[in-house]
Amino acid sequence: MRPYELTLAGAAAAIAAGELSPAELTDSVLRRADEVAGVLNPYVSLRHEEARRAAERAGRELAAGRGRGPLHGIPLALKDLVDVKGQPTSASSRVRDGHLAAEDSVVAARLAAAGAVLLGKAHTHEFAYGLTTPQTRNAWAADRVAGGSSGGSAVAVAAGAATFAIGTDTGGSIRVPAALNGVVGLKPSHGLVPTRGVTSLSWSLDHVGPLTRTVEDAALVLAALTGQEYAPLPDGDLAGLRVGVPVNHYFDHVTPEVETAVRDAVGRLRDLGAELVDVHIPMTRYVQAVQWGLMVPEASANHERTLRTTPELYGDDVRVLLEAGELFHAGDYLRAQRARTLMRREWVRLFEGVDVVVAPAVPTAAVRAGQESVSWPDGTVESVPDAYVRLSAPANITGLPALTVPVGRDGAGLPLGMQLIGGPGGERTALRAGRAYERTRPDAGSLAPEAGSPPAALAV
Amino acid sequence: MRPYELTLAGAAAAIAAGELSPAELTDSVLRRADEVAGVLNPYVSLRHEEARRAAERAGRELAAGRGRGPLHGIPLALKDLVDVKGQPTSASSRVRDGHLAAEDSVVAARLAAAGAVLLGKAHTHEFAYGLTTPQTRNAWAADRVAGGSSGGSAVAVAAGAATFAIGTDTGGSIRVPAALNGVVGLKPSHGLVPTRGVTSLSWSLDHVGPLTRTVEDAALVLAALTGQEYAPLPDGDLAGLRVGVPVNHYFDHVTPEVETAVRDAVGRLRDLGAELVDVHIPMTRYVQAVQWGLMVPEASANHERTLRTTPELYGDDVRVLLEAGELFHAGDYLRAQRARTLMRREWVRLFEGVDVVVAPAVPTAAVRAGQESVSWPDGTVESVPDAYVRLSAPANITGLPALTVPVGRDGAGLPLGMQLIGGPGGERTALRAGRAYERTRPDAGSLAPEAGSPPAALAV
Repeated sequence: MRPYELTLAGAAAAIAAGELSPAELTDSVLRRADEVAGVLNPYVSLRHEEARRAAERAGRELAAGRGRGPLHGIPLALKDLVDVKGQPTSASSRVRDGHLAAEDSVVAARLAAAGAVLLGKAHTHEFAYGLTTPQTRNAWAADRVAGGSSGGSAVAVAAGAATFAIGTDTGGSIRVPAALNGVVGLKPSHGLVPTRGVTSLSWSLDHVGPLTRTVEDAALVLAALTGQEYAPLPDGDLAGLRVGVPVNHYFDHVTPEVETAVRDAVGRLRDLGAELVDVHIPMTRYVQAVQWGLMVPEASANHERTLRTTPELYGDDVRVLLEAGELFHAGDYLRAQRARTLMRREWVRLFEGVDVVVAPAVPTAAVRAGQESVSWPDGTVESVPDAYVRLSAPANITGLPALTVPVGRDGAGLPLGMQLIGGPGGERTALRAGRAYERTRPDAGSLAPEAGSPPAALAV
Repeated sequence: MRPYELTLAGAAAAIAAGELSPAELTDSVLRRADEVAGVLNPYVSLRHEEARRAAERAGRELAAGRGRGPLHGIPLALKDLVDVKGQPTSASSRVRDGHLAAEDSVVAARLAAAGAVLLGKAHTHEFAYGLTTPQTRNAWAADRVAGGSSGGSAVAVAAGAATFAIGTDTGGSIRVPAALNGVVGLKPSHGLVPTRGVTSLSWSLDHVGPLTRTVEDAALVLAALTGQEYAPLPDGDLAGLRVGVPVNHYFDHVTPEVETAVRDAVGRLRDLGAELVDVHIPMTRYVQAVQWGLMVPEASANHERTLRTTPELYGDDVRVLLEAGELFHAGDYLRAQRARTLMRREWVRLFEGVDVVVAPAVPTAAVRAGQESVSWPDGTVESVPDAYVRLSAPANITGLPALTVPVGRDGAGLPLGMQLIGGPGGERTALRAGRAYERTRPDAGSLAPEAGSPPAALAV
């Protein structure tokens, strides 16, 4: 196994055993990043030299017995919304030309303190305001979208161009690209990981979290981001775990392959000892209105000035959304806030009866690049953003933690994901269930098999 | 001294000493309330029989040794926004015709548990959305406004028609009428007194608190409302207390009589041992925009339905404000929220250097009923609501506690007030300073001298 193929936990173990140096690992991952750059383009910028120097420094510290934990010497990608002092934060937008961050974000500072090696900045859908990340292509099939907005982060991890990555999630922006590229993504509880120094899309919905190849790795990164104990995860069965299986919303308008893959995965949770409990998801008819009703005006408020001075520098899709948001009435925003309060209350009540809720992460695998809508057998047609936001948004609105894990592939060979949504502060429970499931899958932690292949290689 | 003239603490002491029964006190206060009703009209409704029964019950409990503390048997008025189970909550509005509260508000339940005797519901400016309370007249001069929106509560206390009262304060609605009627008003920290069961004007600015004749009484009521210890207040000097005296904002556009009265009071604080510290009030140019920018859309959101179905039942002033609020853009509301966050941060920082900030409560005494604007010597003209909100709003925006105490009268014999604004959780400090000041005033706790007199009795 080449070093770039290792999971974070695998690489950390090899480094701890003296079988691998941070410099060897970083070199391998950087070479892989260069290899896939042409076809997949996950990165805005790679900083080879700085990364190599950081890796060598980590190696020296380790050799001197000054190890900083499992992230020490591990190479990562930061979504390019996350400030690193002295570097541009492009937000994948021309609006940010010439920008330099004055300070480290909290996240960048904590990862640096953990000894992680920053490779570079990964593409985001412009200002995180979209679900496709058009600059980047899906790691499994380059004619498919990367998903978004943390598309570069997910593709880098899936392709072996980063051992782990950091993304942000305002309406699914960690979980959607993670699911579409067959990796693990964790949106922690609202506020658990500080957003200071991270470009905001919509402050009341924004979350920062890890994208990794395994659940085990996600726990390691979350521990470094929070200073709390999440790893190692318990390796036992799931006896006593009450798993809520939605009877509404989450299995509506999903492809049969998504439903089959997720229900198979739920069956494995049951086989592991979990008790399955039917749950009714509350207030689902308000999900889209609340998500967009909070996000659209908050996003526009963030862009007020540049929308006046340099509107032409935004992509058309993002500019239209931002301009529309300026027309939003305060009453509609307040209605969305109120509905959120009620929705969160109902969801919290739901968790009196279960420990975790399982659900598809996405209703369909990665759509073709340029595709604008998704059609369903009953004649319903929805926009691609609506389709990808619909199943993610409840955890943004409620602030509850949600993990996505790969659960196999559709007929075109494209990956699918299952969400494990935890109750208040329920990261550990979601991670425990995800880890137990992951251990039933022999392919857990592996890379996208066709990463970097030319477009249409996996087309059906 | 007739029983209705007693302060809460005085009445409680007389009851404890067996010199006064709750029934005698309640009878006296009810008679006084009937006496002033024609001229001052502080009450929406008085419930003589229920009050007498409650007072007799309190008397029996006390006689049986089951005393519930200093509020036991003390008669009060509730602003008619505060739900009492089975009673109408009129909000002084025709919109509420036929309304009956299904449950007690938290406040009503806590006061009932403390054994207080509810006399009735006091007038508010319609739905608390105004600073005059036109149904009610000033206790000191019936041609002057009561102030608002807790005008009925303030006038009842000032006139001896209630021993204490409960009001609400969204932009000064406890402090303004308290100051204009020469009584004490306390707006506690945001969230300290639960607002459940209290008709909301603007949830992020709403506060519930006491109106009383003395600071000592305010502490007794706050203790009952919160279940925390605020009374008895320390009776020592103010040595070691750092009192912030604003160098900007609070003494701009106030009458010379207001400035003189407040500065004299500040001098007494210094004489009591306090250290005076000049303070610069932050972000004052944003005060009005933030207060109205938060309040107007939040208020409209509360009235969405009835504004559609029965707009004609609102008073013109309130309907116009509510309708205007529906046109409010979300971006402006979000800007106000952000400015609030920054303003609170700066105010909290200010309190690193001082323990309490002193300031005028109102820029001028009670204006004449029907007066629409206030003019200043430099030619500035402002609306009456703007004038009365300007000095109160910072404590609503920041959520900091603010107490108003009477500080003498203007040339027309009308009372004026001084605010004591505390830092985060600083109720005790504000109350301590207010109490120490109050002890320097021989007239503390006395009633409005001309209460119930015909209009123009005190006109200048």
